[in-house]
Formats: sequence, C-alpha cells, structure tokens
Amino acid sequence: MNPIRIGLLGAGVVASGVVKVLQRNQTEIQRRAGRGIEIARVAVRNPEKARAALGSDVELTTDFDALVTDPAIDIVVELIGGTTRAKELVLKAIEAGKHVVTANKALLAVHGTEIFEAASAKGVMVAFEAAVAGGIPIIKALREGLTANRIQWIAGIINGTTNFILSEMRSRGLDFDTVLKEAQRLGYAEADPTFDIEGIDAAHKAAIMSAIAFGVPVQFDKAYVEGITKLQAADITYAEQLGYRIKLLGITKRREHGIELRVHPTLVPQSRLIANVEGAMNAVVVHGDAVGATLYYGKGAGSEPTASAVVADLVDVTRLHTADPDHRVPYLAFQPHALDDTPVLPMDQVVTSFYLRLRVADQAGVLARITGILAEHDISIDAVLQREAGDDENQTDLIILTHDTEEGRMNRAMAQMEALPTVLQPIVRIRKEELN
Amino acid sequence: MNPIRIGLLGAGVVASGVVKVLQRNQTEIQRRAGRGIEIARVAVRNPEKARAALGSDVELTTDFDALVTDPAIDIVVELIGGTTRAKELVLKAIEAGKHVVTANKALLAVHGTEIFEAASAKGVMVAFEAAVAGGIPIIKALREGLTANRIQWIAGIINGTTNFILSEMRSRGLDFDTVLKEAQRLGYAEADPTFDIEGIDAAHKAAIMSAIAFGVPVQFDKAYVEGITKLQAADITYAEQLGYRIKLLGITKRREHGIELRVHPTLVPQSRLIANVEGAMNAVVVHGDAVGATLYYGKGAGSEPTASAVVADLVDVTRLHTADPDHRVPYLAFQPHALDDTPVLPMDQVVTSFYLRLRVADQAGVLARITGILAEHDISIDAVLQREAGDDENQTDLIILTHDTEEGRMNRAMAQMEALPTVLQPIVRIRKEELN
Repeated sequence: MNPIRIGLLGAGVVASGVVKVLQRNQTEIQRRAGRGIEIARVAVRNPEKARAALGSDVELTTDFDALVTDPAIDIVVELIGGTTRAKELVLKAIEAGKHVVTANKALLAVHGTEIFEAASAKGVMVAFEAAVAGGIPIIKALREGLTANRIQWIAGIINGTTNFILSEMRSRGLDFDTVLKEAQRLGYAEADPTFDIEGIDAAHKAAIMSAIAFGVPVQFDKAYVEGITKLQAADITYAEQLGYRIKLLGITKRREHGIELRVHPTLVPQSRLIANVEGAMNAVVVHGDAVGATLYYGKGAGSEPTASAVVADLVDVTRLHTADPDHRVPYLAFQPHALDDTPVLPMDQVVTSFYLRLRVADQAGVLARITGILAEHDISIDAVLQREAGDDENQTDLIILTHDTEEGRMNRAMAQMEALPTVLQPIVRIRKEELN
Repeated sequence: MNPIRIGLLGAGVVASGVVKVLQRNQTEIQRRAGRGIEIARVAVRNPEKARAALGSDVELTTDFDALVTDPAIDIVVELIGGTTRAKELVLKAIEAGKHVVTANKALLAVHGTEIFEAASAKGVMVAFEAAVAGGIPIIKALREGLTANRIQWIAGIINGTTNFILSEMRSRGLDFDTVLKEAQRLGYAEADPTFDIEGIDAAHKAAIMSAIAFGVPVQFDKAYVEGITKLQAADITYAEQLGYRIKLLGITKRREHGIELRVHPTLVPQSRLIANVEGAMNAVVVHGDAVGATLYYGKGAGSEPTASAVVADLVDVTRLHTADPDHRVPYLAFQPHALDDTPVLPMDQVVTSFYLRLRVADQAGVLARITGILAEHDISIDAVLQREAGDDENQTDLIILTHDTEEGRMNRAMAQMEALPTVLQPIVRIRKEELN
C-alpha cells in the first residue's frame, strides 16, 4: 500500500520532534499502522532556520496555502500555534478535504466549534491528542477508553511550567518571583510566561477536556481562570502542615444544573497520587461512575513527548481514514448531533472547600468573631491553625480550612470578615479539593 | 440506526456490572457510540441465580452454543473465565462471524495466537481491554495512544490482591499469612488465592502487554513467575529503611537480543509514583523512546470498573465494525503479518539490580568474604546495611543492594556465598528496579 502523505505546518520544537520520531521509528510505526507515514513537505517561514531544525531529509516550502490544498497530501499537521493564521490554514485544509492533526489547544479552545463543524461537513477527521497533556494519551482515554462512564469530574495538572514552579517553591521554600526567573533560565518558562502562570494555557486544555467529558461544546470563554502569580511561600508551608500540597489544577465537574469549569491553585491532600506529581510533569485524574478514579501521568510538553501524541494521531487517522465517517470516533467523544447545552455554572455557584489565611490582631475574641461570621453564612469549619506572623508580636496568622460551600457564599463571608478592624490584611483564599 | 445486539456469556460479578452500566448509562453511551447497545440474551448455567444477579430486564438462556451462533447477535461478550469452555465458545463465535469482547486474560495469555488467527481469517474484532488492569484503558494506550514509540519497558502493579496484601504488610508490619486471611475475609482475595499470590494472574497480563508493546506473539509459557508467598515482613522493613517499597511487578523489557518477561516482588524507589500505589489499586508505567515514562492508574478489578472496560470495547466495536478489517486496530497493536520472533530471554540472562539479605555469624571477616565473592563475579555493590538479627547476639542480618547484573551471575555468586559456614540461612534475594 502507498504511504500516507502528510504536510507539516511549522518548524518549531514539536515539528522537529515529529520529523525525528517519524524517521527514527519508521519501521515500528509502519508495522502498527499497516502503511508508511511519509512527510511530503513542510511549510516554514524561514527555510534556513528550518533546515537546521528539521534536518536535510525533508522538502521545505514557504507556501503554506499551497501545502494545505495540495492534492498529493492526505493529512495536514498544524504546529504553528496561535489562533489567527492557524485557524485560516486549518479551515482551508478541511475545505480541501484534508484530515487535520493539531497540537494547538488555544485554537480548539477558542474556535473548536467552528472547526469541528467544518470538518463534519467535509467528512474529515480532526485529531488533537497533543493539545492536552502532551504525550499522555488523555484525549484517547476520554474519547474512547472511558465511554462506558458518566464522567463525574476531571482534575489535572496540565501545565508543566506552573507545576515546576510550585514544586520548587515548596521543596526549596522560595518565593514565586525567584523560582520564575530560575524556570526561565532553565527553559521551563518562556520569556513571556503569561499564558502559563496566569492559568490560560491550563484553561484551554480544561475547556477541551470538559467538552469531551460531558458532551458539550468547547467553552473556554466560560472558564474561571486564576494563575499562581499571587501564591505566597507562607501558604505553601501552612498547607503542608495541614497535610496538603498546592497544585494549579484544571477542574471540570458535573453538577446537577450545570458544569463547573475552572483553573486555580488548589489544596490537594498529600496522600493523593496527583499531589505527588512533581516538576514539569503532568497528570490528569478522571472520575467516572463505573470505573471510579483513574489517573494518567507523563510529560506534558517537550519536543518528542508532544510528537508522540501527534504521531499517534497520524496512525489513528491512517487506520481510520477509509472508514465510513459516521463510524469514526466523534471529535468531542459524543456524536455532533448529540452534544447538549448544559450550561457552565458561574463561579459564584461553584462548590469547593477553602483554605483561608487571615492576618489578624493578636487579641481576645478575634477567632470567635471570625468563626461567628462563617457560621452566619452556614460555612462549617474543618480545621483551624494559629501561627505567629513573622516579627510583629501583635499580629497572628489564622489559617482556616472549611468544608464545602458555594463560592458566592464565601465571597460574602470574606467581605464581612475583611471589614473587621482586627483583620489587618486582605484574606488569602485558596480553594481545596479532596478528589475522592 | 438499529441498536447493535450483544450476547453475554456468564452471570458473574463482571457480567452483572456490564448489565448495570449498559442500562444506567444507556443514553450517554448511545450519544457516544452513535447507536444503541442492547443485550439480546445472556447465557448462564443457573438461571435462578443469574436472575438475582442480573435483574429482570435481561433474557436468559442456558444454551451457550446457540447464543454464540445466533444470527441476531452482533457481538459476543465472554465473561465465563477459564481456558477450556471459554476457548470453545469464543472460537465458535468467531467462526459464526461474531466480534468478541472478553475480559479473560488467561484465555488470551495461553491461546491468544490461535484466537487472533481465527479472528483474522474471519475478519472480526477481538477486544480485550478488560483483560489487563480492569478499568484502566491500558490496552488502548499501548495499542493506539503510544504508537509513535519504540516501547522500551513496561512495569505494572497488575494484581490488586497482592498489592493489597503488600500494602497491609508494610503499613501494619504484619506477616503474609495474617494479611492473606484478612484479605480473604474482606473479599480482596479468593478462597483459593493461588493465581493471585503466586503471580500467575499478573503474568497472564504481563504476557499480553509484552506482545502488544513489542509486536510479538503472546507467550505466557515463557514468562518467569514468582509470587509473594515467601516475602517476609523483615525485608519490607529493611527495604523501607533503604528508601524502597516492595511491589509485585509484571515487567517486560526490550533488550538487544530479546525480551524480558517476568513477574516477581521488586524493590522500587519510594520516590516513584508507582511505589505509592496502595491497596487494591493497579498502575502501569510504560516507557517509550519518544514520550518517556507515562503512568496509568485506577481500579484493576471489581464489577463496574471491569465492566467499564468491557463496555468501552463494545463502543469501539460498534464504532468500527463497518470499517474495512485491514484498517482496524490490529489485535496485538502490530499488523498480524508484521509480528516478529524476538525471543523471550531465559531468566539467567535477565538484568536487574538486587536486594540480598544474609543471616551471618557475627564475627570478623564475614563482610569481607561476602563482598569478595560478589567482586569475583563482577557484581558491584550499591549499599550495605548491617542490623541486629532478633534475639541471637551471635547473628547479624547483612543487607546488600547491588548494581545491575545478570541473574545467572547472581545465582552463581549466591551459591558460593551460601556454601560459607558463616552464612547461616538461605539468602533472601529480591530484585530491584529503579524505573527511571
């Protein structure tokens, strides 16, 4: 059988991984796919730079538009990133009847609905294993491995940069800014780290997983997003003393009248496997009603780990491209006509437990007043820890763990507590998940 | 579209899970599969008992042979276990052109080659996600999620009973017999626990994973199998002091001239995620050349977790059954004509590092003599620990961690050490894997 021919867009880190893996493991991949997978051409902006990155065996072009419409190409692999030019090219490739493989989470999180509709109309596949958690086959697990289940929730460490920063902050007691600089020096964080540290990248991925888990459209715009930039070393230490680790989690959860979709720093019990995922590694816990909790762990970024997912998609498309489109795995796990419109709940209605840290005046009656306010709002307390607050002996840190409550209720209680003259600074509030 | 119709063989724990999950999640499953999945009939030996287990909504029969050849049935789900009658029925179903879904690891580990050949000749699918690690979609990860990779090794906790026993022995300092009895009382171990505690069940699963990872036939008969019945509490404690946990691992590894395939108690560094998998949970680490290490964790047994895998297979078959057989996912991940004959290495040639415990006479020169023997066999030492051995002040426990060496070399060194008059008991030898 003739090899299947792919056209690659981009010459970055992932593209060079794809070229390397396809070349190195050619035999192995063909033994699995039943057919060779061959790079027909790579579209790049800078051919000299690309030649250095991709080696001498690939044919280069600067004409992206010609590549995505080339009749000799079966699958277009989009690895240029961004949401403007990438969207144009992906839609053009689909229009030309190409199957598309992409690692672009931003593109799918923002324009997923439009892209999947176009692909559906043309009867082509859009595969995107590499868009979430790099080399971990989590999209496959959700779309195919757990189809028996009503998914109840997903919680994932899906951004390696922030997990590296949090791991270093904890193990070495350093503050955010110091570790960020080190992460940039080591190449774990980009020069402009905003997408990572503000939680946007994780929210793109969470929005994609949410859609696949619950059979709803991808709705990044509805996600609550909070990064790690305001995390203080003190809270990591206190959390540890209470038996928790702080992780930036992407969470999506089925509730009775809607779906929660959110990214924020989260206290997780130390005994959970996911709490022990350190450094730049990723891990996703999926809880289904039949299977219970399953966890998927591995490298979430990097050249070859991401290429591993891209090439797996290429093998899938190669295996399936002759199949009747109605019988392929649906883009978002559920048949396009069977998506439903369960709303994403506003953050006010999200339910979590909380870690609160209050800097208070060290005087009689303060704790009573604060616990009184929580009680008035029907927020029940799980644990209280009182600690000296640095140098000033007239101030104390009061750390409170609550049981589950609605975010809106907590906001109201916090406003009331912050209005007390004995509460000396804005309250630090970190959400907590037991994940059981 | 008409629902796809399945015939179920068996009315045990997994069968009742399959019935429950298909009924409860009917809508969700149909939204994913694009088509309903309906139980046409269940073949059982004892209809009264089955009625109680399966509920009143399913049609029962005692005629297994008629079920597997019934033209109205599209997929046969084999859940009776064993390798005799199950084999007959599966082959008969295949002969009748049915797709087969099975949870029967023993059947595939022993008769896989014959069954896959028969299925290939008939152009039908045989799906068996439930045969390894219950609800964890590890077969899918290996067959489809990691197709870009040359798999280097797999190491898995793939038997929940033994992991439960080891977890209890460690956390509570109890000995094997005590914990086994408790596990039997709690239902974690069967009345006849041989298959579990002797490592046979784990070896069935390891043999299946090995075939899929390396593109070789399933070769349970070539596996080295050692259970946990001889493990002593003392070694678990010493291992812990050295920074290790003892787990029963199923391991398969690519070596230059062959494949390692083995099940045995193994020391694993405490810092590895898999070392922290406790109780009856399962976890599998897969190391691929592109993706690095990935880990898959979840419930490896039980009614609904196993049913989760069976039903996922049903959805896969439903999605794929109209596809051209040449483009389906191959039974063993590699195209049948592309399997190769890389041999399974004899245990003598397997390379691991070792934990050794020697009960020795507490006198000068003993350690020198023993380390001398290891040096003669070119076995280098990583760490030595010396501990008082219970009551007798004339005896000492000498614990040695070695670096990697061949098993045959270690056997010869051990024989020589055991011949020393100062070595007072047979040496305890446990293999160690760094898994990095």
